[in-house]
Amino acid sequence: MNMIEIIEKKKLGNALTAEEIDFFVAGAATGSVPDYQLAALLMAIRLNGMNREETKLLTLAMTHSGDVVNLDAIPGIPVDKHSTGGVGDTTTLVLAPLVAACGVPVAKMSGRGLGHTGGTLDKLESIDGFSVSLTEEVFLKQVQSIGLAVIGQTANLAPADKTLYALRDVTSTVDSLPLIASSIVSKKLASGAKGIVLDVKTGAGALMHTTEDSIALAQSMVRIGCDAGRNMVALVTDMGEPLGSHVGNALEVKEAIDVLAGRTGGPLLTVALELGARMLVLGGAAKDVPEGKAKMEAALHSGAGLAKLKEMIVAQGGNPACCDDVSALPQAAVILPCPALESGYIASMDTVGLGNTAQAMGAGRRTKEDVIDPAVGFVMQVRIGDKVAAGEPLATVHAKNDASAREAIAAIQRCIHMSKEAVPPCKLIHAFVSSESVERL
Amino acid sequence: MNMIEIIEKKKLGNALTAEEIDFFVAGAATGSVPDYQLAALLMAIRLNGMNREETKLLTLAMTHSGDVVNLDAIPGIPVDKHSTGGVGDTTTLVLAPLVAACGVPVAKMSGRGLGHTGGTLDKLESIDGFSVSLTEEVFLKQVQSIGLAVIGQTANLAPADKTLYALRDVTSTVDSLPLIASSIVSKKLASGAKGIVLDVKTGAGALMHTTEDSIALAQSMVRIGCDAGRNMVALVTDMGEPLGSHVGNALEVKEAIDVLAGRTGGPLLTVALELGARMLVLGGAAKDVPEGKAKMEAALHSGAGLAKLKEMIVAQGGNPACCDDVSALPQAAVILPCPALESGYIASMDTVGLGNTAQAMGAGRRTKEDVIDPAVGFVMQVRIGDKVAAGEPLATVHAKNDASAREAIAAIQRCIHMSKEAVPPCKLIHAFVSSESVERL
Repeated sequence: MNMIEIIEKKKLGNALTAEEIDFFVAGAATGSVPDYQLAALLMAIRLNGMNREETKLLTLAMTHSGDVVNLDAIPGIPVDKHSTGGVGDTTTLVLAPLVAACGVPVAKMSGRGLGHTGGTLDKLESIDGFSVSLTEEVFLKQVQSIGLAVIGQTANLAPADKTLYALRDVTSTVDSLPLIASSIVSKKLASGAKGIVLDVKTGAGALMHTTEDSIALAQSMVRIGCDAGRNMVALVTDMGEPLGSHVGNALEVKEAIDVLAGRTGGPLLTVALELGARMLVLGGAAKDVPEGKAKMEAALHSGAGLAKLKEMIVAQGGNPACCDDVSALPQAAVILPCPALESGYIASMDTVGLGNTAQAMGAGRRTKEDVIDPAVGFVMQVRIGDKVAAGEPLATVHAKNDASAREAIAAIQRCIHMSKEAVPPCKLIHAFVSSESVERL
Repeated sequence: MNMIEIIEKKKLGNALTAEEIDFFVAGAATGSVPDYQLAALLMAIRLNGMNREETKLLTLAMTHSGDVVNLDAIPGIPVDKHSTGGVGDTTTLVLAPLVAACGVPVAKMSGRGLGHTGGTLDKLESIDGFSVSLTEEVFLKQVQSIGLAVIGQTANLAPADKTLYALRDVTSTVDSLPLIASSIVSKKLASGAKGIVLDVKTGAGALMHTTEDSIALAQSMVRIGCDAGRNMVALVTDMGEPLGSHVGNALEVKEAIDVLAGRTGGPLLTVALELGARMLVLGGAAKDVPEGKAKMEAALHSGAGLAKLKEMIVAQGGNPACCDDVSALPQAAVILPCPALESGYIASMDTVGLGNTAQAMGAGRRTKEDVIDPAVGFVMQVRIGDKVAAGEPLATVHAKNDASAREAIAAIQRCIHMSKEAVPPCKLIHAFVSSESVERL
């Protein structure tokens, strides 16, 4: 088999065979195909697409390019959840303890990756002592004993995706449905969970900007997952503004604890309950979504969710004091309000801009080598549709120093767009996608 | 400026600015832009195209990415000729001495490159002692004194094209009109000639397979050349079968000498006279093509062309004995006929297959490191439309040993397709393209 012929075929818009896909994926995993040939193929895929069968073959080839975790030792149906990435999206820290508290094992492997803000692993690491680097054996034992563990992906999970993802990032080939779908689903399949709920974000701040494109991505991923023998469903949820109010690593842990302690709610809780209810259905602990939601709410109100989070923190070497007193989390040196420059209604937000602001403050990585500052970020005080007067706070910034705080304040002011006319609030959940149907919500 | 944004822009089908084109071309020349980003951009250009202005800007950026030869010291109007590459295409060795003998200086820098068969440099190097590695100073002096020199390109001629061409070769992005046009014309502009005649090959064995695509390529190149202040025209000629009957390095030198000595003619001479006549027009030695052709024919019949070739061989250190006795050229060890397997008319030829056969015999390079065998190749005994009986020779192979000869005979038999019906001969010259018009011939 010849890489030039594979590129040529896709360049001409033809479908690749299983053998051809296996060849270049193996080449990406082992390094035997040079980056420049992979880059040319990625651009040809971005511009000429891949059909459903090719996308499935690509996903399976990437899944099997490295280790595949076996969760058979875990009793019950282990479930996982994956978000395509959003700002202020702390749903994992809210729903995973609740789902586990309802008796469905959650065995979650998260990627580190680059991004506007830290990922779930970075958030957890803002808890004093918490380790996300467990061996697979210790990981499985923890899920067996307490029903919950969140760790970093092993180095050899879908190594072909690592190569291709890094290349896509620098060759403007991220925005391709088959490449996004195969990248996400291959890692989920390799992580071993049997039931998987996807949270596909939509809007200006998401991978896919329109609801229709997001539904298409969700359908593609759900089909591949189900074809591969897993139970997979997806929600399409909004990213027109940050989901939770807190953006930044320790700040997001604080918000998750506040939610689990019943002190706050809002869109973060709403989406976490919707996703978690479906995880309970996939995990066999609820016959339908309403029953799942009722069980999630019961675990919330009884405090079982917060107790489960505490158990996980202890099991992974962290100090659980923050669960009782959130001030035990890292605190920023400078906390300042970000005032509205004019009066009006919040019309829209540049969600990516807000994410980049948090990253610039030190909450996210620009390069793999960047060190994250767990304490920094900001807390939004407004949502789209809110009415504010000039001088009232749009957000509160938590910065490492005055200069950073001032920069962040100006940036947040630029990211929040006002209107003189009243604006309706954002719709939160757009669609539920299963292998059988698309339900618009 | 950011390479990812440049790739993104072309991916979305937008036109690049002069600054963006200069940025990536400089990056290709210096190595500051990694190969994988160039590869992704090349594929985006292949699939989304470039408009006329972008193609011109790309060509000029590549021209100025390295040294630009100054031929002002040469009296008169120095001319050059470039072929897009064919099999058995020895026109340079026929027309350059004739044009120079007519008083128009020919200052030709050739590329080495990979290909089915050796290039002009490889052919000349089959002459004992001949050197194609002259300094620019010696090169200019030779053109001043005898009006003719053919040398290899200096290392720093259009270095950006070197990088991009090597990448295109391995990323299936050769077949792009703007990339072909800019690659060819940038080197011609950097070589300094003021009048340039392009020979754009067309047909299954050429870069462009249809006459219309070949005319479009010719037009694109001629426009760029004229916009850049050079006098440039093009002929579109056929590559449905080898142009000359001889394929292989010393064999092609032999055929050129036979033509210049008046011992043979045929399509090679016809095309050489057409191209050369236009070089004389551009060089100011003929008022129109008929006068140019008459002068070329006079130089042929008087022996002035052959004498000029001899002069060049002597000036560049070669033994001119071959001009009087072609048996002084390298001879292959095994010479065998390649018989027709059936009776009929020659219907078509796989010209690329014939080129690959010569390469496999040792006449061309597969990698830069391959050493060429000057003596090997084959002499075609038939042209399209000819009637042959089974057992009559299709060609005579000149091989290094019996095994190579047998392989070549089988390969040539596969490349020549017969028909029971009579077949008309190939049309040789399809169009003449100038900056003002396209004249279909």
